[in-house]
Amino acid sequence: MTEITLTTFEWLPEFPRGYVRDIRIRWALEEAGLAYTVKGVPFKDRSNDHFQHQPFGQVPWLSEGDISIFESGAAVLHVAEKSEKLMQSDPKGRSEVIKWLFAALNSVEAASLPWFIFQFSGDDKETEGGNAINSFLASRLTHMEDVLAEREWLTHRFSAADIVMVDVFRVIDRFDGLDDHPNCRDYMQRGEDRPAFKKAFADQMAFFAEADIRMCGSDDS
Amino acid sequence: MTEITLTTFEWLPEFPRGYVRDIRIRWALEEAGLAYTVKGVPFKDRSNDHFQHQPFGQVPWLSEGDISIFESGAAVLHVAEKSEKLMQSDPKGRSEVIKWLFAALNSVEAASLPWFIFQFSGDDKETEGGNAINSFLASRLTHMEDVLAEREWLTHRFSAADIVMVDVFRVIDRFDGLDDHPNCRDYMQRGEDRPAFKKAFADQMAFFAEADIRMCGSDDS
Repeated sequence: MTEITLTTFEWLPEFPRGYVRDIRIRWALEEAGLAYTVKGVPFKDRSNDHFQHQPFGQVPWLSEGDISIFESGAAVLHVAEKSEKLMQSDPKGRSEVIKWLFAALNSVEAASLPWFIFQFSGDDKETEGGNAINSFLASRLTHMEDVLAEREWLTHRFSAADIVMVDVFRVIDRFDGLDDHPNCRDYMQRGEDRPAFKKAFADQMAFFAEADIRMCGSDDS
Repeated sequence: MTEITLTTFEWLPEFPRGYVRDIRIRWALEEAGLAYTVKGVPFKDRSNDHFQHQPFGQVPWLSEGDISIFESGAAVLHVAEKSEKLMQSDPKGRSEVIKWLFAALNSVEAASLPWFIFQFSGDDKETEGGNAINSFLASRLTHMEDVLAEREWLTHRFSAADIVMVDVFRVIDRFDGLDDHPNCRDYMQRGEDRPAFKKAFADQMAFFAEADIRMCGSDDS
């Protein structure tokens, strides 16, 4: 079996730790029980090789033989194709997982990302633009609140789609955006309670903590 | 072979016509040469059945037998799995198409959608929030400009990923957002020049034009 390598930044400031998107792929790999190694690339000086793997200069990407996949959604889907635990094999079950995987990214994260960017722009005045961005997220969460009133996971059992949706919710919850959406928060908590999530989270935190030690222990850093 | 049905709004105001996301699925089906029927659902009164198919109350969705897929990206991927024209069958080629399909949605549209929402919020003052939203899109387009300097399509030949990326660019270009990104605009134009796109566009416009006639001819509308 070809080795799977997950590439992330070799070091990052404290703030994004625990929320770097490699956690989605770590989590998927842990659920699937697949072996993998984690590699770091520089956070500050991004090489041409980095842009070859990730054209927007971000992380993570997943490599397996001559395959290199950026976009956390595409990488999670790639892992899911390897494991019944993450993706049903019948056409209907498969289509359910895939549509919810896209929904997590393109219906929910597409609304939470601008909300996050807006919050951190330093713009604290009430403006039409800010209200429009807030309403966009609120509308998506209200619909998700209805969806999650009826079910434990997005499809009839835990799948790759839940990994991405839970992680999208985690960032919203970090900035109190789930306060009015208890079903969404409970669902997120169910995800975070899974042993594979806990392992992925602890591993990401440890990876960057080791980088701190390496950097502090070196004379030329 | 099970019949494919594409569901969109039965009628819409003029403004979004030509840009409703069913065009992505129409285009994919036209490229693949697959037969399909188009069904309309009410734009104003959205039924419970509508939310069963599309939990955010939007369109489109694609149905085939007992499968129902919302999210344009998931529906285009579903069509692509049926046709060599839209998706290579070897694992590496397949992974390239899928990662760029996700990138079109989650790296580019995730930046263009808030930009669009912000522009239409009526907020015409320069604010930190607005600048952050503008910079987010500009950064993504600058990277895409580099990517498209070297290639005709996102992968080594036209694929499902180009359908979504070109359509994401179309909305940006409609509001002059590609003015500083000639490679992006040329790429978009190559997409719009394809006969399958032209057919999909004309069909969407005709579908809503027929609804106008139907509504004007009715006493109770």
